[in-house]
Amino acid sequence: MTDLANITPQSARILIREGKLNQPTSGLCKGHVQANLVIVPKALAYDFLLFAQRNPKPCPILDVTDIGSPEPKFMAKGADLRYDLARYRIYKQGELVDEVSNLESYWQDDLVGFLLGCSFSFESALINASIPIRHIEDNHNVPMYITNIDTVPAGAFSGKMVVSMRPIPYHQVTRAVQATSRFPQVHGAPVHIGDPSLIGIDDINTPDFGDASRIGKGEVPVFWACGVTPQNIAMTSKPELMITHAPGYMFICDPKDEDLAVL
Amino acid sequence: MTDLANITPQSARILIREGKLNQPTSGLCKGHVQANLVIVPKALAYDFLLFAQRNPKPCPILDVTDIGSPEPKFMAKGADLRYDLARYRIYKQGELVDEVSNLESYWQDDLVGFLLGCSFSFESALINASIPIRHIEDNHNVPMYITNIDTVPAGAFSGKMVVSMRPIPYHQVTRAVQATSRFPQVHGAPVHIGDPSLIGIDDINTPDFGDASRIGKGEVPVFWACGVTPQNIAMTSKPELMITHAPGYMFICDPKDEDLAVL
Repeated sequence: MTDLANITPQSARILIREGKLNQPTSGLCKGHVQANLVIVPKALAYDFLLFAQRNPKPCPILDVTDIGSPEPKFMAKGADLRYDLARYRIYKQGELVDEVSNLESYWQDDLVGFLLGCSFSFESALINASIPIRHIEDNHNVPMYITNIDTVPAGAFSGKMVVSMRPIPYHQVTRAVQATSRFPQVHGAPVHIGDPSLIGIDDINTPDFGDASRIGKGEVPVFWACGVTPQNIAMTSKPELMITHAPGYMFICDPKDEDLAVL
Repeated sequence: MTDLANITPQSARILIREGKLNQPTSGLCKGHVQANLVIVPKALAYDFLLFAQRNPKPCPILDVTDIGSPEPKFMAKGADLRYDLARYRIYKQGELVDEVSNLESYWQDDLVGFLLGCSFSFESALINASIPIRHIEDNHNVPMYITNIDTVPAGAFSGKMVVSMRPIPYHQVTRAVQATSRFPQVHGAPVHIGDPSLIGIDDINTPDFGDASRIGKGEVPVFWACGVTPQNIAMTSKPELMITHAPGYMFICDPKDEDLAVL
């Protein structure tokens, strides 16, 4: 059996492209960057690029393809965004209309692809700092919540920020802030620490996406901006067409997480 | 006489707008962010935004105005980019064709303004870290050089990176890297340390812009990406229209330098 944790990003992308690897990518190609995908037509690309620039915490840009090109040449030379993810979601006018395993039938010559940093990278930073990650320990999806935090609008795009939550032992909260501050391109430092109601989360046990994490005694809920934000923005802003990865089925990049550290 | 070092950014902008303050802005509104200005028509705005995103060291974006609006609302609510700088440069097809004190006769409804981080902010960080700045000590312009470092092209824009140089005592070079790494939005860490010939600088005593700095015994030339890069890119890429500030006559923003620290 292939050791998926230790294959190269290129090998993983080939397996995915050939339909031989069709699973969430958490834990694959250990130490390498994984990315959220957003694809929009050129007519919306300026607004989305500006939206991402104005909202770097939920939408940290790692790569932008040239118009009509499916190659994210800075994150994975030779890769093809039409085939190298296992599952895609198609949003039209804000409605999820299809989920597909490649973009053959949806690709157009005017599309622009954006790769955005993903929490898998900062989770490596937390684990390296000896901070436990509950949803990995308990083997479930990370809990995600739509907050009352407004993103900064740009052209056609506006809406609320989505955050992910990890319960952190109180004596490690400062360390968690430090460890993730080093990685602004993968969501960076937390956006909120503590009382969920302050950011509009009424019931921490009922996430809007993913699964609830148990919060132990002496643990503090810590919230990071989440790469699912663009999907929420799509539902709010109803662009003509937005294509994304399916949650958990990320694009695997060539660089290592540590390559993205600012310090 | 007005204490220009300690007036508010808003007061400084009003003095400039009224034509009562017409001098380089170095040293004004101590502790507040100053910014490079680039204005291009909407048709070029996507390419320039992408160029800046791909080249964050020379072109760190602080603000992008809405199309046709002269208000940089995130860096200075209520300010007006047509009047609030003392001197502007007009480039057409890559040629410097005019230098003006306001943009009344050049403003168009399709223009987009970009504010980019400026070295004045990281110089504050160096001074706070007890690292001397030669061109401030000697009261001349910082020396700037066109290097052999290619920027990452984006659409209509490509060309070589411009850097600024500060001689740093050898025992403070590490500290200089650390102090400026905290501020990626104002050029961040150095792009090169030491031998100028490795980045295509043949004669350190003959800068392409600004004035030469004397380099003492035991001092190392340290090079940072420079906000003059877009003006060099304009000359190389020859866009239909690009408006910039005149070197040294920066836009004064409301936030403080320390607000931009990532750590």
